[in-house]
This record gives sequence, C-alpha cells and structure tokens, in this order.
Amino acid sequence: MVLTISPSTLVFVLALITTVAWARPGSEDIDERDTAHQVHRTRRSRGIKDFNPEDDSEFWINGAQNLLSTKLGRKPITGQAKNVIMFLGDGFSIPTLAAARVYLGQSLGATGEETVLSFEEFPNTGLSKTYCVDSQVADSSCSATAYLGGVKGNIGTAGVTGRVKVDDCAAMRNVSNQVPSILKWSQDAGKSTGVVTTTRITHASPSGTYAYIANRDWENDAEIKNSGQDPDICDDIAEQLVNKLPGKNINVILGGGRKEFRPRDFTDEDGTPGSRTDDVDLIEVWKADKVGRNASFRYLWNRDQIMSVDPTDSDYVLGLFNRDHLEYHLLANRRKEPTLEEMTTFAVQALKKNPNGFFLFVEGGRIDMGLHDNKAHLALDEAVEFANAVQAAVDLTDEEDTLIVVTADHAHTLSISGYPVRGNNIFGISGTSSVDNLPYATLSFANGPGYKQPEEDGTRYDISRDNTMDANYEFPATSPLYSETHGGDDVAVFARGPWSHLYAGAFEQNFIPHVMAYASCVGNGRTSCNDNRK
Amino acid sequence: MVLTISPSTLVFVLALITTVAWARPGSEDIDERDTAHQVHRTRRSRGIKDFNPEDDSEFWINGAQNLLSTKLGRKPITGQAKNVIMFLGDGFSIPTLAAARVYLGQSLGATGEETVLSFEEFPNTGLSKTYCVDSQVADSSCSATAYLGGVKGNIGTAGVTGRVKVDDCAAMRNVSNQVPSILKWSQDAGKSTGVVTTTRITHASPSGTYAYIANRDWENDAEIKNSGQDPDICDDIAEQLVNKLPGKNINVILGGGRKEFRPRDFTDEDGTPGSRTDDVDLIEVWKADKVGRNASFRYLWNRDQIMSVDPTDSDYVLGLFNRDHLEYHLLANRRKEPTLEEMTTFAVQALKKNPNGFFLFVEGGRIDMGLHDNKAHLALDEAVEFANAVQAAVDLTDEEDTLIVVTADHAHTLSISGYPVRGNNIFGISGTSSVDNLPYATLSFANGPGYKQPEEDGTRYDISRDNTMDANYEFPATSPLYSETHGGDDVAVFARGPWSHLYAGAFEQNFIPHVMAYASCVGNGRTSCNDNRK
Repeated sequence: MVLTISPSTLVFVLALITTVAWARPGSEDIDERDTAHQVHRTRRSRGIKDFNPEDDSEFWINGAQNLLSTKLGRKPITGQAKNVIMFLGDGFSIPTLAAARVYLGQSLGATGEETVLSFEEFPNTGLSKTYCVDSQVADSSCSATAYLGGVKGNIGTAGVTGRVKVDDCAAMRNVSNQVPSILKWSQDAGKSTGVVTTTRITHASPSGTYAYIANRDWENDAEIKNSGQDPDICDDIAEQLVNKLPGKNINVILGGGRKEFRPRDFTDEDGTPGSRTDDVDLIEVWKADKVGRNASFRYLWNRDQIMSVDPTDSDYVLGLFNRDHLEYHLLANRRKEPTLEEMTTFAVQALKKNPNGFFLFVEGGRIDMGLHDNKAHLALDEAVEFANAVQAAVDLTDEEDTLIVVTADHAHTLSISGYPVRGNNIFGISGTSSVDNLPYATLSFANGPGYKQPEEDGTRYDISRDNTMDANYEFPATSPLYSETHGGDDVAVFARGPWSHLYAGAFEQNFIPHVMAYASCVGNGRTSCNDNRK
Repeated sequence: MVLTISPSTLVFVLALITTVAWARPGSEDIDERDTAHQVHRTRRSRGIKDFNPEDDSEFWINGAQNLLSTKLGRKPITGQAKNVIMFLGDGFSIPTLAAARVYLGQSLGATGEETVLSFEEFPNTGLSKTYCVDSQVADSSCSATAYLGGVKGNIGTAGVTGRVKVDDCAAMRNVSNQVPSILKWSQDAGKSTGVVTTTRITHASPSGTYAYIANRDWENDAEIKNSGQDPDICDDIAEQLVNKLPGKNINVILGGGRKEFRPRDFTDEDGTPGSRTDDVDLIEVWKADKVGRNASFRYLWNRDQIMSVDPTDSDYVLGLFNRDHLEYHLLANRRKEPTLEEMTTFAVQALKKNPNGFFLFVEGGRIDMGLHDNKAHLALDEAVEFANAVQAAVDLTDEEDTLIVVTADHAHTLSISGYPVRGNNIFGISGTSSVDNLPYATLSFANGPGYKQPEEDGTRYDISRDNTMDANYEFPATSPLYSETHGGDDVAVFARGPWSHLYAGAFEQNFIPHVMAYASCVGNGRTSCNDNRK
C-alpha cells in the first residue's frame, strides 16, 4: 500500500510532526462532571518551552488567507465532462470521514486532526439526503437507485421505482418501473463504462449500475428460489450482469463474488464451490458473448494477473478476485488480491482509450462492513484505501475534462465523543466517566455486536481491559445487534471537474446523477452540450 | 410560535400529507439478525391501492431537473456585502440537522424526512473542521475564536491564541495573544453590530464576539476569584462586555444572564440575586456609559418590552430576558421571554438603519444544552426555532447585499439509527434487537445522563416502558456521563448572499470569518473591495 497524500497536506503534516512530542501524551482522564467547559481545567499539559506553530495567529490567518486566494483564483469549469468517475464510499458517514482523517494522520506520525484525505481538497461540496421512498434510513440498494439512476425507490430494491415492492418480480420486470443508471446512459452516448468494487460485484451498490432487481439478495438463482420466485422468469443479478444490457456491455468489471457466477458443483480457482443451482457458469457465458462479438477480452482472478497485463489491450475485462467480497485491506493477503487503488488505476487506464470518454463507478464497499461489525479500525483503514483510490484517479485524469464525484450512500452510527487531547489515538480512551469512574472510548456506535454486557453487579464493562488497538476490536455500542445499523444523517458530496460547482447546498440524493449527466451530456435530461448550443 | 416554512417546501409537504395515511403506520419491528439488507423482507406494509407520488420516476426526475435549472440560473453574487449575519447553532451537528428536519415535518403532519429547514435552501455549503489547538474535539469557546476571529485557540478559552493556556491571566492580557473578532473588525469599518443568543450573553459562544478570556467560566468576578486570580487585574466577561471595546460599542445585545451583571445583594427583576462580588451593577454602568456619550439607549428585561418598543429609536439596546439562560422554547413561559426569532427580527430592524451596514451574530445556544442532557426533543425544538430565526433574517434582508452564514461550532454524539419505516416518529422506537429481543430507539447518544442501568439480571433496560415522546425524555446512551459530550465530526456551513460561493469544500473552521470579512470589506485580510478596485 502506498499512502497518497498531496504536497500541501504533506507540508502541514510535517510541520505538525515536529510538535508531536507535546501533542500525543496519550489519553488523559477528563472530569466531565458538569459540562464540557469543565474539561479545560485539566488541559495544561504543555510546558512553557514547547513550541507549536498553531499557537500563533499567523499560522491560522495565513492558512485561511491562502485558502481564500485559492478559492478566488478558481473558476467554475463549464466545458463538457468527457469522463465521469463516481466514487462511492459505502456507509462513509461524516463522522467516519473525520475519524478516517485522524487515523491517516496518526499512521503518518502526526496528531491527525489536521490531515486531509485526498478528496477533501476537492473544491466543491454538498450534502445529500439519503432516505428512501419507504424508509427513514437508506440501505445500499435503494440509495444506489438514487445516486445512479436519479430516482428513489424502496429499501431492499435496486434499479427500480417505488412501485416495486420487495420480491415483486412482475413489477420489477415491467420496464416502466425500471430505472436505468447513468452507466446505461453513458453507454447509450458511446462512452466506455466500468464498475470497480471491493465487494461482490453483484452486491447492492454495484448492482445499481446494471441491474433492475426487486430484492438485493437475488445475487444468484438459488436466492430467487429461496424467495419463492421462479428463476426462469426472474433474472438474478449475476445473470443480468452477464446477459443483459447494460451489464454485458460494461468494459471493465473488477471486484469479488465469483461464487455468484459459478455452479454449486464447480470448483473455483480457490477450490471452493459456486452458489448457482442452474448449472450455468456465467463466467464462461461472459467469455462466449465476447467471442461471439469478436471482441478482445480477459478474465482475471488474482493480483499477479491484473498487475501484469496491459489494461489497454482488451475490449472487455472481467476480474473477480475472491469468491466472496475482497478481504479487508488490513487483513488481506496483499499478493493475492489487488487494492482498490490498483483496480481503479487499471480501470481508468483501460477506459481512457475511448475518445468519447467513459463513466466509471468505484465503490469502497467494505467501509460499511467494518462499521456494521463495529470494527472501526478495519472501517477507517478501508476509508483511507478509498481515499487512495480517489487520488489515483485524480493523478490519471485532467480536471478540465473529468468530473470526479465522491460520496456515500448512507451514514452509520459511529460517533467521535468526549474531549480527547489533540493527537489522542483515535482508537483510544477518550476520558473517564464521573458517574461510574470507568473509561469510555472515543469511538462508539449506537448499536451492534460491540455492545458490552455489564458485569454481574450491573456496573458497566471496563474497556481498559481490552486492547482497543487490535484491528478486530469491536467498539462499544448502546444496544446489542448482530449487525450495527445504518444512520439517517446526511452524507457529504465532494466534487471536482466540469460542473462540479453544481454540487452545492443540501439536496436529495437522487440529484447526484442528474449533475453528472448534465456535465457529460448523457441521459434524457438537460445537458451542458444542449445548453451551450443555444 | 410561528413555524416559518418556504413556499416550495410547503408544496412538498402538502403533497406528502396526502399520503401520510400509508406513511405513518407507526414503528415496526425489524429483524436485523443478519445485516441491513434483511430489513426489506418486512417492508411490505402498503396495499396496492395506496397512491404515493414518490413511487413514480417522474416525481424524482422532475424534482432533480428543477433543482438543476435553479442552480444553473444562479450566478455568484460578487458585490460587497453591506451586512453580514452569522447564525450559530450551538452543537448543531449534521445528525441533529437530519433529525430536526424530520421533527419539523412531523410536527406539520408530514412524514418528515423530505422537510426542508429554512437554511437548507441556501445555495452554498461547506464542511467545517472543528478541532482546536489542544483538543481533538472542540468546546464552544475555542471554536468561537475560530469562527469569529479566524484563529484556533485552546479549549476553554475564547478570543485568545493557543499561547494562552487556561487561567493564564497574564497571557490573556497580552494584546499580541488577543484575537479580535469580526464584530470588532466591523465596528472599525463603521458598521453597526449586534449579538443575540438564547444563553447568557456572557456564555462561551457570544463571548467570542467581544471578550479575550483565558477561562470561559469567568463570566463574573467571583469566578475569577474561584480560579485564584485577581479580578482587579483580570476582567471578567460581563465586565469586558460593558467596559471594553468592542463590547461597549455593540448596538444590540439580546439574550440571558442578568446575574452576571448584578451584585449578590441586588434583587433582580425576577426577585433573584446577582452573582457579582464587586458591588458593581454592570447594567447601570452600561446605562451610564451611554448617558455619558449622549446616546439613546434602552434596557429591556421582558418580552412585552421588546415587542412594544420601536427597534429603530435607540442607538443602543441591552435586553437581558432571564437571570440565567433563556428557557428552552418548548418549556418557556412565552409571554415572559421572546423567542430567538423575535429577538433576531428586533436586532435586524434595529441594525438596518446604519447606511454602512451591520454585523449581527445570532446563536441558537440551547440546541447544545438539550443534547448535553440527552433530551433530544428539547434540542430538536431549539433547532427548529433556530431555523425560524434564520428565516426571519432572510425575510428582512436582500440576498444581493447581505451575506447570511449558518453553521455550528461543533458536533454532538446524537445518531439516527436502525431502519425505521418512512415517517416513523423521530422520538419513537426504531426496531427490536434480535440479540436480546428488546427495542432500541431511533435517537441515541454515545454518552450522557440518558444511560439506562441494566436490569438486575443484566438484561438491557426495556425502553418500551418509557414515554419517549415526553419533552424531557433522556434518550439512551452507551456510557453514563453527567453531561453528554460533544462530537468530533465536521459540521456544515450553509450560506447565501455576496461571496457565499466561497463556502465550498472542506475547510478549517477558522476560514469562516475570513470569507465574511472578504465579502463585507472589513478586517486586515484580502477584501472584495480592494480586489474590485484593482
């Protein structure tokens, strides 16, 4: 893994590393007995001789005035976006963003809070409201319909309107209820397209680019049977990817999920069986389709392959690097699976050869899963990997002709609490409760498996017993759930490139692809090309 | 109270009220046993006959395309901002924003999620990073230094640089360590100024406009003595407001906190004593100063007075409507205390008469306190009141010459969890845990007094026993603290008016006043007036 960081950030970080001695004394016990403002009484840890550039007005004034000049020097880019790259951090809530920033900075030896993730330097930001037609809090499938198709639907469904209830195969097959995505619109406009994810390629978020599905679990035919539906009538997600439009025309498909394409009696590259019960090997079907179209293609299944082949030598690439989701980056065998950054680099290089441009969807899908498990360490590491993938795309493209949008599908319940001293380890103890004299962690969740059963005498579990620095540590939660839930708060949109200034203000999540379409002149709505012709 | 809501929102809300029958079936038990995507299996509550405009693609496409046209039709405003109004929602985190929106909508009979708070219609948004020089999570005093003075300082201090440690009176009196605020810069440029809050006027946030203080608790001389300092050398916050610049030149001062101005042996308008031990009645000192300057002035202490006097007939107005903070709006005697909206209206009307324009700071200060108490109901109601005050300012000013900035000083640990059905009461049950078969609330906190002691047998407290709709209900928390803590996540900035488009992207909190100064041509930094002269 290479940590990508911009030059300006690096200067900032280096400046702070010089002061790290004072700034990271470790956790500090805090008496919050009354209110927040009592905390400062304990906050006198620095000696008079310590030098910190942040102590002077000039440090902050210069920073702000420089940023002001940068912003004043920036003009909106109003040409056509030849290329659009959408980065989706699954479950990448705003609290997760702040925590990931501290994690990255601390992994570089800085205090962390001042660190800037790659996309935080993008010039434009908006707030996206994520609720779905029938749900106060979104899941990853109905939100995919919104940010890819420009329409909100029901929880558990992807690529279909609110007229499609969960499991309603007939309604889903009704074309008038289907919501084509901006990937489809881009194909229709002659652009190349790609989908990259760290999850199964048939998982909720990526499925929003190519599938019309009444149940996000229908990743293979067996799941359709499980729902009491007929797989001969109802196409599963893997099948839609391989056999239907726009799936079969996607040029670059990189992620996990081989099992959804392989029969149960088939032994996978890893020696494991597939999940399908229809005796179809969809990877072979995918290849045969390309052969039939006289197209060049490659099927890849490990990191060596993707790192050694020329991304530009094939019309179609299908890379499935795990039978299931890719491993968490922090736990993965890095020789076996490519990183999100490596897959993104490959995809951009492959897609760039089309003179009409491309649409690429990249998902950091396991941020969400780390959070669901209350494993903040894994989640924040995935978030940093996601930021690295964004930086790779920035490095390979030109702001003048490529719109890059970075957002999340929904929030989570992670919070950053207490008044930890600057530079306190983000996985550490924030303070001690005056009520029960027990410590509490900086990071915690509203619910999930990290719930700590109280002691027999009813006292709260003492987390100082735990190694909260362990990558698999499950941070505390208020209510015990097998899987931590999503959060209902707004998520951020970061954007750079043509028309990215339209991402401003607070808006419904389904606004997102309408701007991408406007910028790149695809789809049926208003476009910059039509406006410029007037 | 008048709920202010924009016409476009009203149309949206009315459309949804027609469908409210299906949308508010109340809470629904959810089995989250596996992961989020299992929830949809239970989500089939609507019958085939129910009509919901959100079910159709057109509803969402039209909404997005209309917003696109609105944004395309909008040009950045690049004239001088004659007036600047800064609204500070204390502790108004992004999760609180989403919850307040639902609360407002539901109080109007709608599902809620689609409701738009007044300032959410502002065209520009940014993300503000709130950490302070010595603290990963901000308090309201160091953040006030950032968003008002453009410089970050240490937790517990206001209006001073990081060179001033808590209680360091000598460092605080050193002018080179003092950070004048944009209120001071605006006075220096010949503008009128005002400060409005629902807290004591000497509390952390408002003190950032006029005080240089090494300890936010030093609201009166007794507190300075408590810290072992000499009040003859060290001026308390109330004293600085009345006797020093820029405090003594502030034209409109409206809030609470009479006790900080009154001696202990003085009986207040309410029959309660003051807190001062120096035998000085600072309200009389304030009046005498205005007499000495041949200025017209008014001292007000109840709602009847502020509602009956002409805001434009005095040079100076001091209104202190409670000996302490104003009451929570939901619990207040509304005949006794004005609302934030009423005070804001008065202040804008009073300040508008200066042809050079004005700077006004308005704080919704008790959002924070409701959250500290885990009393989400009180907090969200304060947030709605805050949005009403913003709307009042919008109605009284012109976007072409008035920059309005709405932001928060820091986050909190409130989260919106689970997958509640659309329109589920925001104060209700979100779902039931499959681990312990007990319900969990939609709203909860990382810590605070709402912590529920488990049963004697160790099982989690059953919140279905509680009336979570009660205004004083303390929502659950992971760790018991006397006061819930702040959160470390970024907060939003919403802006409209001249140069509001500079609030884009993610930035350090101290960037905020530099833009206000640029727009209104005050302070020592780069300004639009200087740039336009070039």
